[in-house]
Amino acid sequence: MTATSLAPRVQGTVRIVGAGLLGASIGHALSARGIDVALDDTSPSQLRLAIDYGAGRRAADDDAPSLVVVAVPPDVTADVIQRELERHPQAVVTDVASVKLEPLRTLRERGVDLTHYIGSHPLAGRERGGAISARADIFVGRPWVVCRDEETPSADLALVEGLALDLGATPIEMTPEDHDRGVALVSHVPQLVASLLAGRFVDAPDGSLRLAGQGVRDTTRIAASAPELWVQILGANAAPVVDVLDLIAADLTAVADALREPDAPGARRAVADTIRRGNDGVERLPGKHGQNRRFEQVVVMVDDTPGQLGRLFGELGDLDVNVEDLRLEHSPGAQFGLAEISVVPSAVRRAIDGLESRGWKIASTTND
Amino acid sequence: MTATSLAPRVQGTVRIVGAGLLGASIGHALSARGIDVALDDTSPSQLRLAIDYGAGRRAADDDAPSLVVVAVPPDVTADVIQRELERHPQAVVTDVASVKLEPLRTLRERGVDLTHYIGSHPLAGRERGGAISARADIFVGRPWVVCRDEETPSADLALVEGLALDLGATPIEMTPEDHDRGVALVSHVPQLVASLLAGRFVDAPDGSLRLAGQGVRDTTRIAASAPELWVQILGANAAPVVDVLDLIAADLTAVADALREPDAPGARRAVADTIRRGNDGVERLPGKHGQNRRFEQVVVMVDDTPGQLGRLFGELGDLDVNVEDLRLEHSPGAQFGLAEISVVPSAVRRAIDGLESRGWKIASTTND
Repeated sequence: MTATSLAPRVQGTVRIVGAGLLGASIGHALSARGIDVALDDTSPSQLRLAIDYGAGRRAADDDAPSLVVVAVPPDVTADVIQRELERHPQAVVTDVASVKLEPLRTLRERGVDLTHYIGSHPLAGRERGGAISARADIFVGRPWVVCRDEETPSADLALVEGLALDLGATPIEMTPEDHDRGVALVSHVPQLVASLLAGRFVDAPDGSLRLAGQGVRDTTRIAASAPELWVQILGANAAPVVDVLDLIAADLTAVADALREPDAPGARRAVADTIRRGNDGVERLPGKHGQNRRFEQVVVMVDDTPGQLGRLFGELGDLDVNVEDLRLEHSPGAQFGLAEISVVPSAVRRAIDGLESRGWKIASTTND
Repeated sequence: MTATSLAPRVQGTVRIVGAGLLGASIGHALSARGIDVALDDTSPSQLRLAIDYGAGRRAADDDAPSLVVVAVPPDVTADVIQRELERHPQAVVTDVASVKLEPLRTLRERGVDLTHYIGSHPLAGRERGGAISARADIFVGRPWVVCRDEETPSADLALVEGLALDLGATPIEMTPEDHDRGVALVSHVPQLVASLLAGRFVDAPDGSLRLAGQGVRDTTRIAASAPELWVQILGANAAPVVDVLDLIAADLTAVADALREPDAPGARRAVADTIRRGNDGVERLPGKHGQNRRFEQVVVMVDDTPGQLGRLFGELGDLDVNVEDLRLEHSPGAQFGLAEISVVPSAVRRAIDGLESRGWKIASTTND
């Protein structure tokens, strides 16, 4: 964790409003760095929980924070930012809401002086929320978008980017517009699409669902997300989300028509192009390590008993093979699973020969 | 692999037409059980490869197979089934095509005697095809749909279900209509939806894609599938696929309209219901072990160096904690990853205490 091994860049007291997952996690991380963290939350129980878990101390009226982090639900973010700017004119105020334009627009309409406000968004989080799920490390290695503008004082910018760096995140400067379009495309629309697809399973016969494999499980995994927060996020970022949805709806109708009229000119080609465009698009996604297409997969059969994976990865360690990624797939009903291990191409031969010589059954190897 | 430890149910010679991934994998598995496998393929190189890899012997003109397995591309499946029924009247003929109604309809239109034909579909496979990717174990624990009808002689049915059982698969009797509707919903449409979503990334700015996380990677993983085969599959199962696509298109338009007009009556509720229906739908999917929602997740920080995972899983073995599933998530740029381990609830406490006492950092635990 070299990213956090330096002296903290943030100085003085950091006031965190909202002791949920993000607020409490920031509190944990800063407290661990020895920074004075003053926590505030409208929910006394949530606040007590966060304090008990070591996210910081209870905020006091005479706190004079150098930085205020607003980590409240989207629908109250603008109000709290405004209140904090007025209460703490000496402080830099940032927020961690997952939509950046709407609160800014609201604050501008109200004529709030935004000189010392810098919106930000750590691309971190977990499927479960709340202070109880908070952990200091959820920001490490993640992007942390910082929305500066021309008027942003460089000292203020340094403080917010310092916060990101102190937590091990990677600051990325973007305009609120670019940020919101970005998360609409890679987060909000994928959530809706996964939900719409999974929604089709509600009335499906059991027999159909028995045919489900790993592919559809992956495709719909995030459909398990909690509705409350998503209604707010999607509502706050409606325009960019709708833009992408309309494009996908048009693509979807086009491919459905092509399948309806397979002999129409260009129909088969339209279907092929849909799959091919998907190939090209998914290749553009930064993978784990930002580049997981560099890796090759080795699939090993593993008995479904304690210690087997330990033996496998222990021997991979002996072979000096670093596992870049892995996915364990159980064969339903069978007493073993398939461990798909991603390694750098130069290690594939060594991994296969070494494992086979140690009696492992290699189910397959694939290039990705 | 108890499923394959009994004496083989299939007797005599099994003729396999098409030595690609499925054909060669079936050949490997049957040959390993000591069954005489006669391989045929229009591609001499593909055939040689499959034979070299131990999938069986070259077919001879005087073979008298008890069972013929047609494992050719969808667009020639009906022709080959017809030819094999005529050439081998004493044999039971099955196929492994991923669409079941179209070939059957074609054969009926041609007036072919289908008494000894039983369509089937092993829900197995890999992202890469060809004899070189073939492995005997890809069917173990997977569903294998068998499409019998009233006229199907029970001896013939026993032979095809015996083939599935000999390969470690679980035979499931379905009508061709139910099968095709099922795979449309849980395989063909998810493929198209993932492709359509990923297709939107082709023209996206790099900055947007930098914000991508694990969720969108999972949602679009299968968008990497090869176009050629999918054009045939989607074309052969167009009607059921289009039925689902039309429903999703309508849902998609409805939620887009709700986001466009957030103050319209029921708009916010419509968005919430979309996410909620997704929750309900994804819960109906059989998970790994058919029931992975029984498990809880423990997330452990792991240094990104050889041997670390070995130590982790070795110690989990020492703690008698069986890992039901796992997912390794790298923090881009950071020199460690997060290993999300699924264990039975009763093992969570033991895993956490044991690992922490051994110096592991538990990033989080979640219920799933």
